[in-house]
Amino acid sequence: MKLVRFGTVGQEKPGIVDSSGQIRDVSGIVPDITGETLAAGALARLRSVDPRTLPLAPAGVRLAPCIGKVGNFIAIGLNYADHAAETGAAIPAEPIVFNKAPSCIVGANDDVIIPRGSQKTDWEVELAIVIGERASYVGANEAMEFVAGYCVCNDVSEREYQIERGGTWTKGKGCPTFGPLGPWLVTTDEIPDPHNLSMWLDVNGERMQTGSTRTMIFNVAQIVSYVSHFMILEPGDVITTGTPPGVGMGMKPQRFLKPGDVMSLGIEGLGEQRQRLVAFEGSTLDTSHHKRAHS
Amino acid sequence: MKLVRFGTVGQEKPGIVDSSGQIRDVSGIVPDITGETLAAGALARLRSVDPRTLPLAPAGVRLAPCIGKVGNFIAIGLNYADHAAETGAAIPAEPIVFNKAPSCIVGANDDVIIPRGSQKTDWEVELAIVIGERASYVGANEAMEFVAGYCVCNDVSEREYQIERGGTWTKGKGCPTFGPLGPWLVTTDEIPDPHNLSMWLDVNGERMQTGSTRTMIFNVAQIVSYVSHFMILEPGDVITTGTPPGVGMGMKPQRFLKPGDVMSLGIEGLGEQRQRLVAFEGSTLDTSHHKRAHS
Repeated sequence: MKLVRFGTVGQEKPGIVDSSGQIRDVSGIVPDITGETLAAGALARLRSVDPRTLPLAPAGVRLAPCIGKVGNFIAIGLNYADHAAETGAAIPAEPIVFNKAPSCIVGANDDVIIPRGSQKTDWEVELAIVIGERASYVGANEAMEFVAGYCVCNDVSEREYQIERGGTWTKGKGCPTFGPLGPWLVTTDEIPDPHNLSMWLDVNGERMQTGSTRTMIFNVAQIVSYVSHFMILEPGDVITTGTPPGVGMGMKPQRFLKPGDVMSLGIEGLGEQRQRLVAFEGSTLDTSHHKRAHS
Repeated sequence: MKLVRFGTVGQEKPGIVDSSGQIRDVSGIVPDITGETLAAGALARLRSVDPRTLPLAPAGVRLAPCIGKVGNFIAIGLNYADHAAETGAAIPAEPIVFNKAPSCIVGANDDVIIPRGSQKTDWEVELAIVIGERASYVGANEAMEFVAGYCVCNDVSEREYQIERGGTWTKGKGCPTFGPLGPWLVTTDEIPDPHNLSMWLDVNGERMQTGSTRTMIFNVAQIVSYVSHFMILEPGDVITTGTPPGVGMGMKPQRFLKPGDVMSLGIEGLGEQRQRLVAFEGSTLDTSHHKRAHS
């Protein structure tokens, strides 16, 4: 299944994509797509329904983040050998784990805000894992059972904040709107092999990243198992798994995003995202609450 | 006010501590003490009630984490000049920001589990800030308006995972049960000056940490303001603000926790915690769900 959430911020409804690509409203079956509903058997309930019997979502509706109320937004760093090389970093011996603030999560096509005064906002197309069941100390051989599905994540990053401001990467990874998730949460049954998916990212129509999940250093099962040895993973937690080569920081000369730029990105089987960059204007409490859908 | 949550895991009820130190059940007034209820005016509603008219909580009931459904559990590193010195680190030029997994949060007196195979589990008494309102790009001069209150946090840390396993500190900070919060969430009106509170931590009755929030490098307002420039802070988010000297890692020889040890700790005006260390036994999915209260 391809699960979606649609509607304005704070008014999101759950949906599924039917065989013709249209969004059907499933709010009569599950209240939302969140960790809580996943844990309560939302997937089984949705599987038992014929989508064609359900109401259509309004045409042109905003796509919300494909998973709501994310408790922990975890990220794996330098997980593609060739990306590690472009940043000048050694291939890590074990996964690098950092956090994105859950408050940075937005819909797949929402505007991305360049932080106030930022000069180094950058892009990263990534495969994200959505956890379906509580996982603690799980082995790699059983880890896939704890995965509900996958989605595209743009791990938007501010490189000065990430690298030049002391301490961990956290400061450059969780700025408002830095976590587009979606368009869909694609359940694992539709993605039998998550390690052979092509992926790409364009800026203003120019190809920047071309890669495949085939070149991940640590695979999905290894990542879920590894992280579960350091913290309990809860249903609805998201782990984004690293980016292939082609980020702006790795270019010579370096290249960063500016207002008006458009990022478009996608992963085979998981759909596409499109975000317009906008300048910070006054309070992000306003701008982050009035996200616009793009046609 | 001193807000509490009490009851078994998953069945927590909200309460307040009355003038005689007894817990009154306020579940008839607010459904819980969470970011959502704080944002919806829980504090004003609770202030309008005479606690003595409310039912008493059962005697000896477990104290749950004093804030529920924490969305982001943020921590500031090396924020006491003398603690930075004991770890051999330079005094940071700006706050070091890292994350604890929200899934590590437990009650003030719940058992703390030594992770499987861990040799370097350590203690850290800290003043934690609970955010009351959404905060983004707030100045230090207005930052206190976004704080709902304070609580004691034991920022339990596994030093091998934190320092020797590559990447950021995340791995050693969010292990199951590594985030005792409470006993109370004390509202800001009761703590007019959060920068003059004595604090202490004992292991097995022996004093390990003695300090005061007076020696914090970055104060509460500076921390809230600073973090809000990198991510939106949501109601119910927790920022724990660093620890004074006396952690096990800084001792010569180093000293770490073992099963059967008891940590007791407190901060002036914010109450006391007491945790027994237990060995990891089988699945933490079981042990973390059946936490015990101590008398």
